[in-house]
Amino acid sequence: MSKTIAGPEIERLIQLLSKLPGLGPRSARRAALHLVKRREQILRPLGDAMAEAAEKVRVCSNCGNIDTRDPCTICRDPARDQTTVIVVEDVSDLWALERAKALNAAYHVLGGVLSPLEGVGPDDLTIRRLVERVAEGSIGELVIAVNATVEGQTTAHYIIDQLADFDVSVTRLAHGVPVGGELDYLDEGTLSAAMRSRTKI
Amino acid sequence: MSKTIAGPEIERLIQLLSKLPGLGPRSARRAALHLVKRREQILRPLGDAMAEAAEKVRVCSNCGNIDTRDPCTICRDPARDQTTVIVVEDVSDLWALERAKALNAAYHVLGGVLSPLEGVGPDDLTIRRLVERVAEGSIGELVIAVNATVEGQTTAHYIIDQLADFDVSVTRLAHGVPVGGELDYLDEGTLSAAMRSRTKI
Ligand SMILES: [Zn+2]
Ligand SMILES: [Zn+2]
Repeated sequence: MSKTIAGPEIERLIQLLSKLPGLGPRSARRAALHLVKRREQILRPLGDAMAEAAEKVRVCSNCGNIDTRDPCTICRDPARDQTTVIVVEDVSDLWALERAKALNAAYHVLGGVLSPLEGVGPDDLTIRRLVERVAEGSIGELVIAVNATVEGQTTAHYIIDQLADFDVSVTRLAHGVPVGGELDYLDEGTLSAAMRSRTKI
Repeated sequence: MSKTIAGPEIERLIQLLSKLPGLGPRSARRAALHLVKRREQILRPLGDAMAEAAEKVRVCSNCGNIDTRDPCTICRDPARDQTTVIVVEDVSDLWALERAKALNAAYHVLGGVLSPLEGVGPDDLTIRRLVERVAEGSIGELVIAVNATVEGQTTAHYIIDQLADFDVSVTRLAHGVPVGGELDYLDEGTLSAAMRSRTKI
């Protein structure tokens, strides 16, 4: 869009919307037009919701989750098994596991993985806080649910090393065939792991 | 995502984002997380931009365009040929023609098309204002650039009827083969129109 056809406020809206994941320049323009045509129904409520989130969002000082209160909703939830802690790289992984209703437990969000190449060391993640939580003595099981990448596995090993002196059970997600997955699209590592872990029907 | 894993402010943000065109529930969650993780870089500026747009956006009382001032930037622009007016259904069509740098002229945004089935009559569009503009006498050419649909064409004929008493030249966009378009994907109407309007190389 040329610079002169709509006011600078609309241009700025398009430009900021185009920074959202999943919205390119074209869909950012469509979204902006959708918004300005529905001022009271969406534009104003969404602006208010963003202002409120910007005011209230914080990182949980206990587990690294993002929420509007600290400690977060999950850390405060008495209906969860707070003695089991699922260790994830990112809040998006926490959300994915929650959507799957995978386990009614607590979490620890690392905030990334160790990556010497990208200059990410242990102090850039929340590993120290994780060791503190384990040292406090109430955690019985840590489920390491980092991604099955080289960096993820390196990070998992580093964490396990740090916890060698503590009496905590450490587990990881099972490898296997994705539900609905077709065998001939899977890599050999996944297939042989699935075969080794085969279960009785 | 279950209702209990993040504060209600984040849930509301996801819910409102999912109403944007191009964002389903999954990408709305991704966008929300992207925003709350970048509070100062995007979340707050975008919230501010939306609040400002909500405050300032208005429909141009002359042409029906959406802008943050009235008359709009296009209607005020002395570098445009204000005697030629392109009639479009929607602001999105205006933006598309501007991106194409199709013609350095003024516009008239109808706000839809006539549709008896959906209860859209002439008074639901800006047709009366268009006739007024023509009656004011400074418009030499109206380019009807409505969509090539039945409703679009019905609307075009209705407008032409309303303008029968005025001395204004009315034109429409040419039909033809889209640039880069493959012939065997085009419908017969387009192909025969392109053939009738064939030009010398
Ligand atoms: Zn927490
Ligand atoms: Zn205007």
